[in-house]
Amino acid sequence: MDSSIPSPLAAMTSSEPSRVAVIGASGYGGLQTLRLLLGHPRFDVTFLGGERSAGQRWSSVCPFLPLPDDPQVQSADPDRVAEAADYAVLSLPNGLACQLAPRLLERGVRVIDLSADFRYRSLEQWNQVYAQEAARLNRTDADLCRDAVYGLPEWHGPAIAEASLVAAPGCFPTASLLPLLPFLKQGLIDTDGIIIDAKTGTSGGGRVPKEAMLLAEASESIAPYGVVGHRHTSEIEQLAQEVAGQSVQLQFTPHLVPMVRGLLSTVYARLRDPGLTAEDCTTVLEAVYRHHPCVQVMPVGTYPATKWVRHTNRAMLSVQVDTRTGQLILMSAIDNLIKGQAGQGIQCLNLMAGLEPETGLPLQAFYP
Amino acid sequence: MDSSIPSPLAAMTSSEPSRVAVIGASGYGGLQTLRLLLGHPRFDVTFLGGERSAGQRWSSVCPFLPLPDDPQVQSADPDRVAEAADYAVLSLPNGLACQLAPRLLERGVRVIDLSADFRYRSLEQWNQVYAQEAARLNRTDADLCRDAVYGLPEWHGPAIAEASLVAAPGCFPTASLLPLLPFLKQGLIDTDGIIIDAKTGTSGGGRVPKEAMLLAEASESIAPYGVVGHRHTSEIEQLAQEVAGQSVQLQFTPHLVPMVRGLLSTVYARLRDPGLTAEDCTTVLEAVYRHHPCVQVMPVGTYPATKWVRHTNRAMLSVQVDTRTGQLILMSAIDNLIKGQAGQGIQCLNLMAGLEPETGLPLQAFYP
Amino acid sequence: MDSSIPSPLAAMTSSEPSRVAVIGASGYGGLQTLRLLLGHPRFDVTFLGGERSAGQRWSSVCPFLPLPDDPQVQSADPDRVAEAADYAVLSLPNGLACQLAPRLLERGVRVIDLSADFRYRSLEQWNQVYAQEAARLNRTDADLCRDAVYGLPEWHGPAIAEASLVAAPGCFPTASLLPLLPFLKQGLIDTDGIIIDAKTGTSGGGRVPKEAMLLAEASESIAPYGVVGHRHTSEIEQLAQEVAGQSVQLQFTPHLVPMVRGLLSTVYARLRDPGLTAEDCTTVLEAVYRHHPCVQVMPVGTYPATKWVRHTNRAMLSVQVDTRTGQLILMSAIDNLIKGQAGQGIQCLNLMAGLEPETGLPLQAFYP
Amino acid sequence: MDSSIPSPLAAMTSSEPSRVAVIGASGYGGLQTLRLLLGHPRFDVTFLGGERSAGQRWSSVCPFLPLPDDPQVQSADPDRVAEAADYAVLSLPNGLACQLAPRLLERGVRVIDLSADFRYRSLEQWNQVYAQEAARLNRTDADLCRDAVYGLPEWHGPAIAEASLVAAPGCFPTASLLPLLPFLKQGLIDTDGIIIDAKTGTSGGGRVPKEAMLLAEASESIAPYGVVGHRHTSEIEQLAQEVAGQSVQLQFTPHLVPMVRGLLSTVYARLRDPGLTAEDCTTVLEAVYRHHPCVQVMPVGTYPATKWVRHTNRAMLSVQVDTRTGQLILMSAIDNLIKGQAGQGIQCLNLMAGLEPETGLPLQAFYP
Repeated sequence: MDSSIPSPLAAMTSSEPSRVAVIGASGYGGLQTLRLLLGHPRFDVTFLGGERSAGQRWSSVCPFLPLPDDPQVQSADPDRVAEAADYAVLSLPNGLACQLAPRLLERGVRVIDLSADFRYRSLEQWNQVYAQEAARLNRTDADLCRDAVYGLPEWHGPAIAEASLVAAPGCFPTASLLPLLPFLKQGLIDTDGIIIDAKTGTSGGGRVPKEAMLLAEASESIAPYGVVGHRHTSEIEQLAQEVAGQSVQLQFTPHLVPMVRGLLSTVYARLRDPGLTAEDCTTVLEAVYRHHPCVQVMPVGTYPATKWVRHTNRAMLSVQVDTRTGQLILMSAIDNLIKGQAGQGIQCLNLMAGLEPETGLPLQAFYP
Repeated sequence: MDSSIPSPLAAMTSSEPSRVAVIGASGYGGLQTLRLLLGHPRFDVTFLGGERSAGQRWSSVCPFLPLPDDPQVQSADPDRVAEAADYAVLSLPNGLACQLAPRLLERGVRVIDLSADFRYRSLEQWNQVYAQEAARLNRTDADLCRDAVYGLPEWHGPAIAEASLVAAPGCFPTASLLPLLPFLKQGLIDTDGIIIDAKTGTSGGGRVPKEAMLLAEASESIAPYGVVGHRHTSEIEQLAQEVAGQSVQLQFTPHLVPMVRGLLSTVYARLRDPGLTAEDCTTVLEAVYRHHPCVQVMPVGTYPATKWVRHTNRAMLSVQVDTRTGQLILMSAIDNLIKGQAGQGIQCLNLMAGLEPETGLPLQAFYP
Repeated sequence: MDSSIPSPLAAMTSSEPSRVAVIGASGYGGLQTLRLLLGHPRFDVTFLGGERSAGQRWSSVCPFLPLPDDPQVQSADPDRVAEAADYAVLSLPNGLACQLAPRLLERGVRVIDLSADFRYRSLEQWNQVYAQEAARLNRTDADLCRDAVYGLPEWHGPAIAEASLVAAPGCFPTASLLPLLPFLKQGLIDTDGIIIDAKTGTSGGGRVPKEAMLLAEASESIAPYGVVGHRHTSEIEQLAQEVAGQSVQLQFTPHLVPMVRGLLSTVYARLRDPGLTAEDCTTVLEAVYRHHPCVQVMPVGTYPATKWVRHTNRAMLSVQVDTRTGQLILMSAIDNLIKGQAGQGIQCLNLMAGLEPETGLPLQAFYP
Repeated sequence: MDSSIPSPLAAMTSSEPSRVAVIGASGYGGLQTLRLLLGHPRFDVTFLGGERSAGQRWSSVCPFLPLPDDPQVQSADPDRVAEAADYAVLSLPNGLACQLAPRLLERGVRVIDLSADFRYRSLEQWNQVYAQEAARLNRTDADLCRDAVYGLPEWHGPAIAEASLVAAPGCFPTASLLPLLPFLKQGLIDTDGIIIDAKTGTSGGGRVPKEAMLLAEASESIAPYGVVGHRHTSEIEQLAQEVAGQSVQLQFTPHLVPMVRGLLSTVYARLRDPGLTAEDCTTVLEAVYRHHPCVQVMPVGTYPATKWVRHTNRAMLSVQVDTRTGQLILMSAIDNLIKGQAGQGIQCLNLMAGLEPETGLPLQAFYP
């Protein structure tokens, strides 16, 4: 192999850590990515990019996370990123990554995008779902959308390993799809009437101040939002349909919970075979995830709390069956900023670099 | 009418406030009852009963809620209660009220029970659902169970006004039934496949210390519990069936939310007529609750937060319809300790005393 | 008395409720004022003023607090305010009330200002302490500053009753001064070396979104801020000196606590007479506050929790003495938005209208 | 060196990890110890001891922290502990370690005790301060008390390295002493009139359910407790005096904060030299802690939030000086369960095993 051609296997054999640029470093996604990479055995952060914080010393942005030599945050100039890094993790608001990613890819930088810009294979669908962003962008990168790999590592591992551009799914799709896909794939549940009642901590709303995310407003309260037609509905359905091989229609309702981190998805679906027990269904999940260390299937009757996975890259799944009603109840807990965002990005990065997917990722919570 | 015979109308015409005994005063339900009655224009608390706290000065039990003359908490001797009070609110663990209530009723005291002891018309069903309590009790009061009135004031107002014994529903049934019953009554939704995904604050677990309710355990976490077969399932179904006039089967899943108070029920049901809009369904609720000041129906697109009803006796309801999936989504927020417990008890008490149901009850939250 | 001249006694004898304008209604201070006045027996809110929210229907600003006829928020035109109201409560950022108040006073409206604009008798000192605001204002209302009455009702009741312009003290000075002033007045403590270690909930930071007040940032954390030279230091010292009749120097350190409401001041001072006991010092407080229903002195050994005064206009005080070190420890808990802001404003309003100071104000918490 | 004699250097040179018993594994201290040791490169947990949980499978005690082969919790039989482990970390209520430690030491097990049993050099003083425990114990191990090493690694490193029995200080003394000792040692502050106003999360109260630690009670509230005479006063004074070389008298007031973890100590002391600036005093701390990676001194004007050190073994210190009042203000934030308990124990263990003190300990927080 010509050594000038970048290879997914290079990192594995080389003794040098790979170089990673983190773009959008002062937001929560970027901050988590940075924090996780600081403890990673095979990656070095070699470029810190930001927009609002460009030009500032890192210590003035995040006094609590000291970095060696206190680097300046830089604006994300593609040439400079390409010079400094082999990989770039983009943690930017929707509508920005699609402007930066092509220019990084051209320069040979492999990209993990944590935004929604490349999560749809069809640009047309993205334009519909993200109509507001689409209106001011007029994107022409339909090819890139089609080629980007959806970065759910437990389901798209080999494609991620080869990919130049990975669109890491967000917190709601991750938590909802992990327990649901095995049952769709095996045709064990009805593909309509699926209900996803999801609950998230407020850090999912990002670090830019919004009234609804103030402690004074959000604490001591729970409320639904985005009821009917939330953007993640179509993202979840897209994946569900690919795996089910048929049309899937589901109801997705997010709720805001008074906590910083954590996301719980409670999924309701009708079993096609009313004879299936909770134990049977647990076995279905175990069979799929046995060799996936970032997914843990709990024994029947043990229901996951988001605290159990806080600060980890682990999803905890549990199944219950109501034989009286024929309902399957799937419960899935993740840390929205790690397995639901930054950790997932690094899990993809690990695969791209030929490493074990869980390399450098925390899997055990500090309780309580 | 012989003035020696107690009458529901007496309080209305008399200038004397009615006398109320609060039994179980130091638990959360009793404490709320007491606090609400302190500001009530037509009731005086004339007996403070407790078990664990019997013999103690009130100020040593609750230094934060000073009472005039700092009374002693007394054990709930039926004769002394009957001497002191016209009404008794029982806020006791399940399995205690059924021992005390008959003895109070015999002595002419009208009883509002906040426990589950009289919520089933059939003692047999209670024995099944509360098997653990039933095992040590061997109840023989099937008649009393049949005659007790289920205290959901918006649906059973006239019966409550006449009742000697009212079984006030708990927080989950209250929040779930209020939005659901109008649709069942009018036959607008399927009576199977109903999903109730409910979220409650930790005060619902009571004041007796339990590990799972410690701040260190419960905060920064959300988790399901009692998945499949939770006791409140059958209680909700009982009422739903009475109103629907046919069998109703539903899935009820409670979740513990890191907040003190508040309960949100998100209810999913299939519309029979796919042409109904969110506006139509909002009109259905408004028509039912127009003259019920403790229920507020929100305009389409405004979803209730539990903070909006905290420390009030109000339920806030909202409706959304997904025309794509045919699902009706009902959202209902209450304060679990007030409209879900103590406030509801006093709402019943008001009706029993011939007062307007909302008399003396807070309806506006202190925000934030 | 000529009936055309407004009189503090008018409201008392008249059967008509007084008319109050609330300016800045959608912020936390205005919202609390509004909420408290909704339940007040002698005041009607007749004007809702706002800046950011001017022109909007109230229901779109605060869907959770429905008002009759859903009024529009209006910009605070002095003529229209004067036409509509006898009193105006100004809940505005520092530097705005000093522009509006004179124009209202000219038109005969009596003003309660919840900001810091009139809390210093010396405009010069205000210019120093609020240098940033002063720089763009160039105030010339030194006379008004001198004549404004500092609205701590327990200490300036008669002056408040007669005042045209009341500057209600904020949360930190209120909580700190109430326990401290009696000891300074009687010369029982050293006037230097006083330490005030104060802890506040995040609602004190207001409703305008700031990163530090996001739930994600502020929860699960406590931190000091404004260490040395915080603006409230000089405000507290000004009052302390007036009462002590000599110079007082104190150290004030605020801390941000992960809760919505509540403020606790822990005050340390050296006793001049080492023989004084905690009981003696409790008696000192009781003697001063016996006839002040908004201040409650706790028995020795019972220390106030902010939860005990939440949603009330009550300050709870407690004293402890360390005979070993000669230190007096004063503890004082208030609800920062009520006794520390809006409730205090209404307490002043009550006095101005010739009512009992606690009229219409909640004094008992809903626990928990 | 005779290889049969245990040596602090053995672990360093050996390639085998040392074997550690964790006694009291299901409480918060034990759980943290276990969690930290799971990621430790040089220690293996070889014995899991408990009392309440003895005989249970680990997965039933802590389903969220799966251990290989799901071991049973065992009762802490000294022979079995000695057989299984070189070191024992005791995380037990006060009054238990003093019964177990001697029997482990006899058997050659080196002990780190996280309780207060060996924190006083004088058994007599312990008997006074822990009078309740003393009354039922009648301890006779004055020699052991005298020989035990107080495990504050930044100050007693060499002694800890040689020790057989280390008494790790608790959260309040750790947070308070780290910023205070350098100033006492150099004689820069008065040794009387020192005020420590400390704020702790509720996990410090342990995992055994107590009413005051329920989320419903403790959240949305801050309150002082143990005012005057709290046990930790004398523990802090003992160390302060040793370092100052003279009598030190201080006022210690703890407060309960509505958060799980984190402890902030705000310390007030009078500077002897009024000319010292905040920069000077920061330099004093930096000089002392430069080579101590578990202590971080912040630049002047950056005040530590407990969130910045959550889930880490780091103390963050900051200094401010009020030149007007001559007060030195020291701020110190730690995670009460890590640097204030379990992490500190492992830091001692590292020293005992000849490792760098921070080996295997997290130093960077996951923010937010």
